[in-house]
This record gives sequence, structure tokens and C-alpha cells, in this order.
Amino acid sequence: MALISPSRRLRRTPFSDGVEAAGVKAYTVYNHMLLATMFRSIEEDYHHLKSAVQIWDVACERQIELRGPDAGRLMQMLTPRDLRSMLAGQCFYVPIVDETGGMLNDPVAVKISDERWWISIADSDLLHWVKAIAHSLRLDVLVDEPDISPLAIQGPKADDLMANVFGDAIRDIKFFRYGMFDFQGRTLVIARSGYSKQGGFEIYVEGSDIGMDLWNALMEAGKPYDVWAGCPNLIERIEGGLLSFGNDMTMQNTPHECGLGKFCNTQTAIGCIGRDALLRVAKEGPVKQIRALEIEGLPVGPCDQLWPVMAKGKQVGAVSSAAWSPDFKTNVAIGMVRMTHWDAGTDVDVVTKDGVRAARVHEKFWI
Amino acid sequence: MALISPSRRLRRTPFSDGVEAAGVKAYTVYNHMLLATMFRSIEEDYHHLKSAVQIWDVACERQIELRGPDAGRLMQMLTPRDLRSMLAGQCFYVPIVDETGGMLNDPVAVKISDERWWISIADSDLLHWVKAIAHSLRLDVLVDEPDISPLAIQGPKADDLMANVFGDAIRDIKFFRYGMFDFQGRTLVIARSGYSKQGGFEIYVEGSDIGMDLWNALMEAGKPYDVWAGCPNLIERIEGGLLSFGNDMTMQNTPHECGLGKFCNTQTAIGCIGRDALLRVAKEGPVKQIRALEIEGLPVGPCDQLWPVMAKGKQVGAVSSAAWSPDFKTNVAIGMVRMTHWDAGTDVDVVTKDGVRAARVHEKFWI
Repeated sequence: MALISPSRRLRRTPFSDGVEAAGVKAYTVYNHMLLATMFRSIEEDYHHLKSAVQIWDVACERQIELRGPDAGRLMQMLTPRDLRSMLAGQCFYVPIVDETGGMLNDPVAVKISDERWWISIADSDLLHWVKAIAHSLRLDVLVDEPDISPLAIQGPKADDLMANVFGDAIRDIKFFRYGMFDFQGRTLVIARSGYSKQGGFEIYVEGSDIGMDLWNALMEAGKPYDVWAGCPNLIERIEGGLLSFGNDMTMQNTPHECGLGKFCNTQTAIGCIGRDALLRVAKEGPVKQIRALEIEGLPVGPCDQLWPVMAKGKQVGAVSSAAWSPDFKTNVAIGMVRMTHWDAGTDVDVVTKDGVRAARVHEKFWI
Repeated sequence: MALISPSRRLRRTPFSDGVEAAGVKAYTVYNHMLLATMFRSIEEDYHHLKSAVQIWDVACERQIELRGPDAGRLMQMLTPRDLRSMLAGQCFYVPIVDETGGMLNDPVAVKISDERWWISIADSDLLHWVKAIAHSLRLDVLVDEPDISPLAIQGPKADDLMANVFGDAIRDIKFFRYGMFDFQGRTLVIARSGYSKQGGFEIYVEGSDIGMDLWNALMEAGKPYDVWAGCPNLIERIEGGLLSFGNDMTMQNTPHECGLGKFCNTQTAIGCIGRDALLRVAKEGPVKQIRALEIEGLPVGPCDQLWPVMAKGKQVGAVSSAAWSPDFKTNVAIGMVRMTHWDAGTDVDVVTKDGVRAARVHEKFWI
């Protein structure tokens, strides 16, 4: 593995000093920002995430703020998910598509009020898309990237840690809901959400200046629970079927191919860009779709490009993420498979970097 | 320095196998793609670039293709540079701005014909901006990212190497012009351009399949000239005043602040988004602007966040790029300085990661 070159262009976060002090060993880049990928080893981080609690610098989940009378209308233009029933205080996972139904991002939308929304984005400059639409259509809405940096607390002991800092009311937040909590006299949005299946919260830290104070307070409060600095874990997210934009889906894919058809209400999401194309897809169904795959044999190397999925010498799909799972004692993987071979139990071959491996379509993700 | 984690999201290029075989030591990420930053050491790479010739995988300069009757009109909407005089066969450096005149990218536009343009982009998803405008305004143009990956040949011996592969006609290409040349029966656009001051070419490699064949042919042809695999060099680009989008300028800056006022013909670039805001800026002039700075003392560490530029205890600017220059025996730097302190020879202080250093505004860049 090569090193990552520091530069201003790979933005530091309000928590970078804490991440470095905790001994980060590897990074990726996400929304032009540093995102840690490993502290001890991917496997040690994995076991700890599943048994204790971790603090994650996910400032790279940048926010797009929509503010003004047309904010709600613009938000609905961006996604095929019907937002009419959404209340302030809720978070919705929303596929964002272009005019042909291709995925541009898969963010979480946070509704602050009818006239104010945050879009907590995956890795693409969705700001360009949203700003250009607002400008071209002369919508009455301000669109920008505010100084908000999410910090995630993930793991089975997340509730206990958070209650130590914010009080027991934090335990009452429901999944994909948020509440308002004070820290150093500032009111912060805290949601029960996060990019793991271990439970936990995401704190929308408004104002970089309090970043390290909050990081340190959480680290201190977490001592009884063996808190570590952590990060989204490759193994755990594949086991849990958490898709990664840019890895498992790109602009080439429709939400239906990504198994996100349930978030597409193309009949009722009036005004959504890409609706015409998606209505067609919804009628006919996708010809390939995301599947969990089990790859046999010894641990596979990191999947840094599509690995062809083959059957009888013909390509029937591609694996986009893979890792050895210590808990399930197999290689867990995510791939896109054609309908001819996507049924659970179908035997296929995967052309990994280290050679061809037998593999099988798994009924569902592991956790 | 930490490692970079491989994943499909950090896209490999058609030349990655060559880059790895050449022993790349460090990467950055640029347009969601791997970009090498160091092979031997930044200093060894620097001396070699200035004396021999290097082959650079700059596939990360992704292309946006505009195709159709409205291509020219759309291109002019994107930039304040007047494109009316531009001919097919020319390359123009074009600042791209949003509706407030903030920089979104600083690409090179390549005019193939009146109805076909390529935009060779810096590090931001400009595709989102362009697609949203074309869609929202119902322009008659196709916008996408074609399978084109630039490969740069840079250094004083670039002409000799290229002539060995493409014939002596390559020597006749003028600066920021291009010609069409054959390789393995495919016709490629080759421009005299590149992100160094050492001279050279950029080959727009259409079709990933011929990537490694071309890489190998160039490596072979370059043996008499001591060719190395290389990459944009931090020291050389600062000496030459080559700005880096995301480092030295962001969406917060106008082209005028970046010293790119000469590329803004706001009076005549009719239809340009952001024109109103930039007319105002052009009238009043910017209050801060890009400057070359010399930082005294021993070599400074890498500049991975803005370093405040101070005078009498007040911040008057910020350094965004800095490196030790072996040839000029000083730290060369790029920063934004307020008009009160931007005159050549002005003494200031720079708050680097390792402490405060004396510095001086330099009259111009070094080469």
C-alpha cells in the first residue's frame, strides 16, 4: 500500500487532531476530505465496534443546506422518494437521480422545517447539481455547504456513552429521528443513525470551533465503556449490506438496480427529476441487481476494481466490495448480478485479483 | 504519513498497472481517481523532471463531453472567458464560476468542432453542474464523461520522445493547440500542454483498452532520454505558479482573486452564469489576491491546511501551498494576500505547522 499525500485539497476536519492522536493508520478521501479507514487493523477495529463503542470522524458527510420558500419543492425535485409525509424531526434515506434515473448520490435528508433541510451526502459534489437546478429554474432558495461536521458514536454501548454527556433523554430518540441537545451552550441536532448495524448516533456538529472539545468530552465519557476512535468498517458494512456510493453503485445505476426500489415512489413523487425514466424501470424491473455474495477460500485481497462474476464462461455480474469476515468465517461480498443468476444459492465464479474463486449468491446480507 | 486504502471508489486508471510497476510511493485522490504524487522522492522527481522527461498518468483529468447544437452556447454559459474567437484545434484555460462568481473548477476547454467540446477538469464534479444546467434549461446537448484518459509527457526532452513514437510532425504543434495522431490504428488528440513549466504534451487517450500499450510504447521510446514514470511535482508547480483548484482556490474565490482576471471578458461573454457578480468585481477589483511568497528558514512541512499570513498581529492572508525549493534555496509558497500587504517586498509572518516564520511577498513566481 502507498502513502497518502497531505494537501489542503484533501481537507482536514474539526476532529483531525483527535484522529491523529488516536494513531490513525490509513485514510480514504471522501467529499474532498480525509476519512480514516483503519486504526489498529481492520479486524481489530471490527471486533471492537461489535462489542464496545467507537467515536467516528465522519465530517466528510458534508451537508447541503436548502433554505427558503422553495426548499421543500427543490428537495422533492431531487429524489423519487415521496416526501409529503415527512415531518420536521425525521431523517429519510433518499436516492438522488439525474434525468435518466442514474444515481448521483444516496444521502440522508434531514428536515429541520418546511423551509429548511440538510442533505447529508455521500461521496460526490451534489452541491453542484443542486445549485445549478436552483439557479437555472430561479427557485427561491439558498443552497450552500454550511459549517456542519457529523461525528458518529457507534457500537452497542453508544447509548450509555451518549447518556453520560447529553443525559438520559438521548435514549428516547427513535431510529432515523433526531432531537436537539446542548453542548457548551450550543444546540446540536443528534440523530439515531450511522453507517453501521451496531446502533448509535450521529451528532451534527455546527461550528468547527467546538469540534475537539466535543471529541474530548466523548472520549472522556467513554472510558468506562472502552471507547476507541474508529471509522466505518469495511467488513462490518459488507456484512450489514450497507452500500457505498462510488463502490457498489455509480451514476451508471438506477436505484432499482441498487435494491433501493422501495425508496422510489415514482407514481406520487411529483416533480422529481428522472421520474419518466424511473417509471419505465419500475414497470419493467431491473435486469441486474445488488446481491450479497459469499466467496469461498482464503481471505481475498481488497477489491479496488470491479471483479467479474462469471457463469459458464460468460460475465453475469461484478463484485464491488469484498472482505474476509472473522465472524462468519467466509469472504463476504457485494456485487451486481444479472437476473439469470441472482437467485439465492446460484453458484458463480468471481475473478479476483488473485485468481478465480468459487462463489455463491447469498440469500440476504449477514446481519 | 498514513496509508491510502484501496477501494473501487478511488478509481484506478488505464495506466495504473504501469504506475505501480514503476514503484509509486504516494498518491492523492483527484476526481475520485488515483493520482500519483511521488515515485522516488519529491526532490529526486523534481530534478529529473527539469532535466529529462517523464510520463504522467493524469487520467484523473476527467473529460466532460458536450455534444449537440447547443454545445457552444452551453460552453459559453459556463465561463466568463469570451469563446467567440476560439477555433477547433485550440485549447483554452477557462475559469468556471457559479452564479455569484465563485470558482467551481479551472479546466482546459478543448474545441473539437462547433458542436463538440471536451472540458478537461480539475478536482470537482463539474459534470453535476453542467448536466443540471443542460437539463433545467432544456438545452439541445448531450453531456457525459467519455472514456478518455489524459497521459502527459513532460520535461525538456518531451519533443524527442514523442517524435520517436508519433513522428516529427509532433514538434510543430503550438502551445495550447492540438493535432491528431495515430496509435495502433486509433486517432488520438495530442495537445502541447501540461501541468508543468518544463514543456510537453498531453495525449487524450480515447479507449482504456490501449492505455498500457501506449504507456509501454512511450516508456520504450524514452529509454535514450532517461524517461521515468512521474507525476505533477509539488515543488515545480509552486515555482511555476501553477495554481491547484482545491488548494490555492475554492468556491469561496472569484477568478480575479486567483489572478485569473485576464481570462474574464465579462463585458463580452454574453450568457455567462455569474456575469453580473463578476462585472461588479471587475469594476472594484479584488481586495485580496494570489501571490508568490518566500518563506525564510529551513524547509517547511507540507501545507495541509491554510497557514495564516500575519502582519502586526493581524491576519492579512493565508498560504495554501508551500515546499522547499532546492534550485532557489528557499521555501516557495502560494497564498492569498490582502491588498494592504500584497506589494512585492512586503514583509509578513506565516504561521506554519512548526511555528511562525518570516516571509516576504515575491514579485512573481520563480519560473
